[in-house]
Amino acid sequence: MTGTPAPFTADDYRARMERAARAADAAGLAGVLVAPGPDLVWLTGYAPPAATERLTLLVLAAGQDPVLIVPALEAPDAEKAVGAPALELRDWIDGKDPYTTTAPLLDASGRFGVSDNAWALHLLGLQKELPGTSYVSLSEGLPMLRAVKDGAELDRLAAAGAAADATYEEILKVAFAGRRESDVAGDLADLLRHFGHEQVDFTVVGSGPNGASPHHEAGPRVIEHGDTVVLDFGGLKHGYGSDTSRTVHVGEPGAEEQRVHDVVRAAQQAAFEAVRPGIACQDVDRVARAHITEAGYGDRFIHRTGHGIGVTTHEPPYMIEGEKQLLVPGMCFSVEPGIYLPGRFGVRIEDIVTVTEDGGRRLNDTPREMAVVN
Amino acid sequence: MTGTPAPFTADDYRARMERAARAADAAGLAGVLVAPGPDLVWLTGYAPPAATERLTLLVLAAGQDPVLIVPALEAPDAEKAVGAPALELRDWIDGKDPYTTTAPLLDASGRFGVSDNAWALHLLGLQKELPGTSYVSLSEGLPMLRAVKDGAELDRLAAAGAAADATYEEILKVAFAGRRESDVAGDLADLLRHFGHEQVDFTVVGSGPNGASPHHEAGPRVIEHGDTVVLDFGGLKHGYGSDTSRTVHVGEPGAEEQRVHDVVRAAQQAAFEAVRPGIACQDVDRVARAHITEAGYGDRFIHRTGHGIGVTTHEPPYMIEGEKQLLVPGMCFSVEPGIYLPGRFGVRIEDIVTVTEDGGRRLNDTPREMAVVN
Repeated sequence: MTGTPAPFTADDYRARMERAARAADAAGLAGVLVAPGPDLVWLTGYAPPAATERLTLLVLAAGQDPVLIVPALEAPDAEKAVGAPALELRDWIDGKDPYTTTAPLLDASGRFGVSDNAWALHLLGLQKELPGTSYVSLSEGLPMLRAVKDGAELDRLAAAGAAADATYEEILKVAFAGRRESDVAGDLADLLRHFGHEQVDFTVVGSGPNGASPHHEAGPRVIEHGDTVVLDFGGLKHGYGSDTSRTVHVGEPGAEEQRVHDVVRAAQQAAFEAVRPGIACQDVDRVARAHITEAGYGDRFIHRTGHGIGVTTHEPPYMIEGEKQLLVPGMCFSVEPGIYLPGRFGVRIEDIVTVTEDGGRRLNDTPREMAVVN
Repeated sequence: MTGTPAPFTADDYRARMERAARAADAAGLAGVLVAPGPDLVWLTGYAPPAATERLTLLVLAAGQDPVLIVPALEAPDAEKAVGAPALELRDWIDGKDPYTTTAPLLDASGRFGVSDNAWALHLLGLQKELPGTSYVSLSEGLPMLRAVKDGAELDRLAAAGAAADATYEEILKVAFAGRRESDVAGDLADLLRHFGHEQVDFTVVGSGPNGASPHHEAGPRVIEHGDTVVLDFGGLKHGYGSDTSRTVHVGEPGAEEQRVHDVVRAAQQAAFEAVRPGIACQDVDRVARAHITEAGYGDRFIHRTGHGIGVTTHEPPYMIEGEKQLLVPGMCFSVEPGIYLPGRFGVRIEDIVTVTEDGGRRLNDTPREMAVVN
């Protein structure tokens, strides 16, 4: 896909809100309570100026028009949201109790799904105002809410993936040895923006021993000849996420680095090939983990195999032991096994994969061999 | 204060954690549960790489050593926090239940204070794991936790205020008429950084009718001769906040603009003069509101009079009707009445004020007359 995709319309948001209300009803929930953040962006196109202690809450319930509760002083912003024509704004003014404003919209004995990232402050306010209600996080109660992407969303995710791939191809050309991790991270951020990302979420450059800490971002360490370097970068392009990892080597790798890399690469390939509708999320993890365990590194694979991606770079469904959710065509998630040898180096290989009718399709497709950089 | 203040030490953080645990005990709480964000920064100096669905939680209770629950893959980051020597790290690995890890640290029938911004996901996880526990938001249960600043904190807030004042003095020299609001906002951000802010939180430039929307930030509107322009800007310098507002006029103001400005200025002055230990937060609001109401604009003052400031630019205590918390020396908050005439213009004047032994002291001190700009 080239160029800017057609923007989502009020009708798109109306359809999403209706679908969410129906899904809640089908799941036995009285409704969905959506806080500022990715759920609200996905359902309405609205992002408040800042997430604050002032309650902003979208209330969705089957057979009821969507209502967005907003602080009065943010109402002018909310009115400008693309999805605003598809909902009713109800504002509350400083000094009033926003939970009193919300209560009449809720079934006083209902069970509601609530955004994972809603503030505890607000959940406690609702629990106090309506003691007969109960709550479940959206990731537990409606894990599929944003998980299955439609065509327009898949186009955006593919475009973001292509931009991340272009970034990887360019980063192979820069100097690694003698520069700080943070310098290479800066290059990655510049490249992601150059290839159309409006937001850079992370640019991991884990060289040598730093690569053994999976969430190490990038620091002052000067990269040396002989280092293994984990690169993991992504962000948002046209509002949808990219996230890819490759592990490179400064100069020719030694036998052990190559062996560990081969194990991870084969595990990643096997997990990718396992993707198809009807298997459980945990099966993707199991396939990757079995492969790594068999090679003797099971205790050095210290994170789950993947996470969903959409309007965020990190969301359900999770490819993790215990997640029995079945894969469905249109789901998009990372497949990113790794091996981490403390004090020495790490290896991770990651692609975004979308579930098709009969398997999986990668949205990243740069070479997975361990590239040699300078 | 000039130069960089001495950094806080592990002992500083230890003292804060002990104080928080004692305050919780005195308030009848079994402990304090602290999520990533300003509470955690203030108590430990630790900010995780990103706020995610993975549980990070500081558990404080009287007579118990502080424990920080962290995802295993973020443990290396947490170990580097300045406050880490003052607490025990306990990590949990993907696939395990973090609430099971947390439960043994909690009194199973206790009532806990929890960070306002803790994710609902995590509060629900704890409520499910320990059904005998109950929770109250920290802003309700321990509103004073970060509210009273010590000398080192006041020095930082004063330095941030002085930098914001220097920013205001410089912005008066730039061109307003013929430029977009967003251009002037860019100037404000550049100036805040120039004067030492490491983070810019907001740069409101509300010209003409946009000034009537208190949370309007800055947009493409081209500022015209004859516009009233609300400026409201702030961020963090050495980790502590600034926040000041002045309203300027492009060319000489008309009689009504001047009259509205005079009302707001007198209200702000009266509210400032009311500040002293022992009055309630709501009294500060009442003084400002009474003044504006008497002048006939009561229904156009559509927000509270102020908010606390510290490691964030927006925190308790709130100067709002219903807030009976008494002022205590060392508290810092904004005093920022305003009048908003929809479709026409707005006026707001804001200083940060700290409570002294016998009154209040402003941390902003630029002229409050309506400046004329070009």
